[in-house]
Amino acid sequence: MNRLIQSGDNSLLTEERKKCTFDTDVLAAIFHESEQKVRRRREIYQYYLKHKELHDPEPVEFMDRYHRLENAQRKVVLLKKHLPTIIPDLNIEDMHTFVTLVFHHDGYPLGLHNVMAIPTILNNADEEQAREWLPKARNLEFISTYAQTELGHGTNLRKLETTATYDPKTQEFILNSPTVTSTKWWPGNLAKVSNYIVVVARLISNGKDYGPHPFFVQIRDPKTHKSLPGVTVGDIGPKFGINTTDNGFLRFDKVRIPRRAMFMKNAKVLPDGTYVPPVHSKLAYGTMVYVRSVMITGMARDLAQAATITTRYSTIRKQGEIEPGKGEVSVLEYQTQRYRVFPQIARAWAYEIAGRYTRMMYSQFLKDVNEGKADVLPDLHAISSGLKGVVTHQVCLGIEQCRMACGGHGYSDVSGLPQLFAFAVGGCTYEGENMVLLLQCARYLVKCAAAIRFNQKPSRISPIAAYLFNENAAKKCRINQDTDSDPEVFLEAFEHIAKRLTLKAFDRLQSLQQGGLTKDKAWAESGVDLRRAATAHTRTFIARQFANMVSGVKDLASRAVLKDLLQLFLNYEVLECDGDLLFDGYALGQQIEFARNNVYEIMNRLRPNAVSIVDSFDFTDRELNSALGRRDGHVYENMLEWAKKSPLNKHDVMPFHHQYLGKVMEEARAHSKL
Amino acid sequence: MNRLIQSGDNSLLTEERKKCTFDTDVLAAIFHESEQKVRRRREIYQYYLKHKELHDPEPVEFMDRYHRLENAQRKVVLLKKHLPTIIPDLNIEDMHTFVTLVFHHDGYPLGLHNVMAIPTILNNADEEQAREWLPKARNLEFISTYAQTELGHGTNLRKLETTATYDPKTQEFILNSPTVTSTKWWPGNLAKVSNYIVVVARLISNGKDYGPHPFFVQIRDPKTHKSLPGVTVGDIGPKFGINTTDNGFLRFDKVRIPRRAMFMKNAKVLPDGTYVPPVHSKLAYGTMVYVRSVMITGMARDLAQAATITTRYSTIRKQGEIEPGKGEVSVLEYQTQRYRVFPQIARAWAYEIAGRYTRMMYSQFLKDVNEGKADVLPDLHAISSGLKGVVTHQVCLGIEQCRMACGGHGYSDVSGLPQLFAFAVGGCTYEGENMVLLLQCARYLVKCAAAIRFNQKPSRISPIAAYLFNENAAKKCRINQDTDSDPEVFLEAFEHIAKRLTLKAFDRLQSLQQGGLTKDKAWAESGVDLRRAATAHTRTFIARQFANMVSGVKDLASRAVLKDLLQLFLNYEVLECDGDLLFDGYALGQQIEFARNNVYEIMNRLRPNAVSIVDSFDFTDRELNSALGRRDGHVYENMLEWAKKSPLNKHDVMPFHHQYLGKVMEEARAHSKL
Repeated sequence: MNRLIQSGDNSLLTEERKKCTFDTDVLAAIFHESEQKVRRRREIYQYYLKHKELHDPEPVEFMDRYHRLENAQRKVVLLKKHLPTIIPDLNIEDMHTFVTLVFHHDGYPLGLHNVMAIPTILNNADEEQAREWLPKARNLEFISTYAQTELGHGTNLRKLETTATYDPKTQEFILNSPTVTSTKWWPGNLAKVSNYIVVVARLISNGKDYGPHPFFVQIRDPKTHKSLPGVTVGDIGPKFGINTTDNGFLRFDKVRIPRRAMFMKNAKVLPDGTYVPPVHSKLAYGTMVYVRSVMITGMARDLAQAATITTRYSTIRKQGEIEPGKGEVSVLEYQTQRYRVFPQIARAWAYEIAGRYTRMMYSQFLKDVNEGKADVLPDLHAISSGLKGVVTHQVCLGIEQCRMACGGHGYSDVSGLPQLFAFAVGGCTYEGENMVLLLQCARYLVKCAAAIRFNQKPSRISPIAAYLFNENAAKKCRINQDTDSDPEVFLEAFEHIAKRLTLKAFDRLQSLQQGGLTKDKAWAESGVDLRRAATAHTRTFIARQFANMVSGVKDLASRAVLKDLLQLFLNYEVLECDGDLLFDGYALGQQIEFARNNVYEIMNRLRPNAVSIVDSFDFTDRELNSALGRRDGHVYENMLEWAKKSPLNKHDVMPFHHQYLGKVMEEARAHSKL
Repeated sequence: MNRLIQSGDNSLLTEERKKCTFDTDVLAAIFHESEQKVRRRREIYQYYLKHKELHDPEPVEFMDRYHRLENAQRKVVLLKKHLPTIIPDLNIEDMHTFVTLVFHHDGYPLGLHNVMAIPTILNNADEEQAREWLPKARNLEFISTYAQTELGHGTNLRKLETTATYDPKTQEFILNSPTVTSTKWWPGNLAKVSNYIVVVARLISNGKDYGPHPFFVQIRDPKTHKSLPGVTVGDIGPKFGINTTDNGFLRFDKVRIPRRAMFMKNAKVLPDGTYVPPVHSKLAYGTMVYVRSVMITGMARDLAQAATITTRYSTIRKQGEIEPGKGEVSVLEYQTQRYRVFPQIARAWAYEIAGRYTRMMYSQFLKDVNEGKADVLPDLHAISSGLKGVVTHQVCLGIEQCRMACGGHGYSDVSGLPQLFAFAVGGCTYEGENMVLLLQCARYLVKCAAAIRFNQKPSRISPIAAYLFNENAAKKCRINQDTDSDPEVFLEAFEHIAKRLTLKAFDRLQSLQQGGLTKDKAWAESGVDLRRAATAHTRTFIARQFANMVSGVKDLASRAVLKDLLQLFLNYEVLECDGDLLFDGYALGQQIEFARNNVYEIMNRLRPNAVSIVDSFDFTDRELNSALGRRDGHVYENMLEWAKKSPLNKHDVMPFHHQYLGKVMEEARAHSKL
């Protein structure tokens, strides 16, 4: 039933795969949303494999940043050449698949141009501007990025310092970086790649500061690519990961740009300097919801990749005899190893589904907006904020668990895991810092809590938050020894916690305010409780979507496996919040113990299918980028081959040896009394 | 009272420092064990600062591995030159301080030679061998390392595959790497630096396999440094961190070495091939205890460094207004930020003390051994294993919390935090993989549990484990609202958990064996419960040593601060094991809530002293290696200066631009219809 078996594979993997009780292609189609999408993924991979010019000449881990940038720029040219053949319809998901294969996760020179700059033009340029800028952007007549954050300013946009001061005499804005902290900092592809940028600066006209607005600005000469006078732009230096990307800094020294460089779809400045304010639009929030839901899916897949690598390697890695004389066993024979990895597989599925459902809600929202309804936006914004905070953090902890479960080899770049972690963990900070987002989710919950405490049930209650208003919730936990319980048993338990923590955070806010603190001060002093409420609320959402999805799976063999993964997920989550379940007597210690034993039992049940389940994530060897996680299981030979290509191995003796260590030893020997 | 205040510093830091209620030098002397040690640290730092040739010409993060190795070798020569002046007595702690300043934490070419190879010669060479090898080793007539782990074998040494087959005809051993998995893999300084190695290989004589034994083997020509015939040696490639170290692989193709290359202090092979077995010595375990206790101290300081960087930066970083119109506030004004960082400060102290106490126990053990007593060794081995497993993991989670609490800038190498994490996290795997060590600790606990269950109280009970045998332990938790409780209240709570989990793990083992599993299989199927017991036991040890130490502090102002840190530590640990406390009704939910509020309250109390407390860790700017954590607080200017030196900034326009992206844009413009 496992479609990945090939002759010549490591026999340990093949044995595992033979135990498979379901069709890996069917499960893959469920994970990737349809059979057709899986087929396209594979076609694109085959195309990629065949066209060797798209490959890296050596692993990027062996290259310094100069050569990483050069290699990436080389591939942009080739991507442009191959795209019409392999993705003639420019289907966005297929493009993403192709770009990921070609650029993997160390950086894509057009990433910010496509994902940030073009959408900004779309949403903020007026008709005339869009007519001029959009086709050029799409044709790559220029390459641009989005420059918002500053050295001293990230989350709180209102305090950005870069100024755009209008000069009505010349009808120009003067861009300036008045302080060190106003230096633009972090934008990807800013340092070397982009010649145009969207820059966010405080608009000042007729002496009045109107706060941050976006402008479209040329920073480099189109022909020479040299940075323009008054513009200081450069690379911010090496980072934890994603070092092919030239994240940049930028300073303006009184650079003049035309009035019409300001994006004028929303706010405007008239030639005489009169400021015309924007009609407030909440749609901008909608875009953030979309970006975050796409991020959740990406993070789920990062975790799935880590789990794939570690599960495969754990069947091949042997260590210790359990039965004397029968030889060493696969490390997956140890409960501790399963406990490190299997919950990550279950979570990867849970997060994939949560991301998918959020995208569906977003599509529905877009339809509603067209019918003039936007009242679902606060719900959507809250849950996507919570998801982003919870999922990115859990995914990174999970990748680290997987990495460490690979022992020493997990520390080597040959495993692919250090780079995967460093890539993924950026997601805890960008697109809204996690703590900030969890508190945004909490703000929504506190509103619900106020409605409950003040008995003002709102007219419309989102299904996501409906449980908060349910007065008939069970008062006793129903978790038991059954490893195939009704998921509702768990969902009501998670809801019980989330409701209690939400009300508790609200009560704390109230009591601090009654004690004399301002509302904002009380909020700042309640962050931990608020964060706890948001995390608990998000858990209810993730668990419910996963449960709903599994119940809808038609293929029986796949559903059986997914039910086990769901039960593993639910019972494992119970262990993660045991204190909160026991806190008020809702659950008994014995029930936590049931959940613990359920986890152990379900892991044993999943064991024979473990390799086949991660096979069904359908990742290619290129995506995994790991000698440990290869489909064919030939781990050790390929580790050795990889190592041999390490740049240091160009020299048996390092050219500087005799100048330093060789000299030290020679002198020591010359003076030796032995 | 804060001795770090200097004019010209960032005023935000100075304001914080002015609030200090204790003498930072006194607290520093407590952290570093004595005033004298602090003084020496500072003298060595001043010496380092003055001698610029010891400095890196640019940050190593900007160098590729070739240049990192070259730079490190250059510094070895200088180290040798300066050592007699600054550390004439070759005091080992002072040497460590100096080496850390010069080489920081990316790798030291003599590290393995000093820490692994020389001690192996000391412990395993017979008199004649030692007479020949030791002086040469100490004089650096050769540089060596320790090659044990193989591509396919790490933890389970008994299954190493490299063979040393004795040939009585020539009185030589033949070293061979019979399989790919037998390739030696990971030893530091193996690839390029070392010309001699201690290699662990299976000793085969007269057709019989005697298992792994150590040999001392030349692998490179002393003059040319070229690898010898039959030896394939190279670099294993880039890693998560520590990339100045040339971790290597090595293969032998039937390399002949003399009989006397075998270390013969313990086992021997006579000229005719007769194998003389060693007199079993448990002292080898003792060395592991020592290495681990030193490691705990190192990890504690890694966490202290992360906490220093983040605490200082958090006072400088401003974000959001809490009182409208009063300007943005330091992010330390948010409870969530304090909750991320302050518990890490407390833990750094707790772990420092735990490591220190373990080293003291080890010294006592050495004295005992001289008096013929070694019965404390199992206790020591168990607790040092537990500590290594718990502390390395918690430290790394803590560093990541600190890193993420720095927002986007924590992702840049300019913060020092990515490298600090990547450096520290190796410690979860090397010197005994954490899970394996926790299970070794559990093995000790299970023996205690057997004694309890079978009512066979042992004649000698270690004070570390005495609580397990205490039949009069309180049955009800005494945690309350007091933020200055008797630490015993917490210690008995942690002991309650540890005893329950220990007995539970034992009972599970018993019941699985009664159900028909073999002892080893039952063990493999109980790993998670065993690990939980070991973690809980380790918590009791850490908490008790920290509490004991604080009660002994004489300086009142320092003790007041340390008491707060201790109370923060204890209450925070309660939150980490809330489920275990509530499980059996030992604690009530209300008591967990008390602990939570205590944490909030103590954090507020610590707030004014926070910067001064991390100042008292007394780390130099060189150790912190972070623009965010600088003593003077001039964060942003120095970030910008650092970035400007990034190698990519040698070019305004990358030389390959016109070949790739420039060409793409030019062609697009040429075909433009606009």
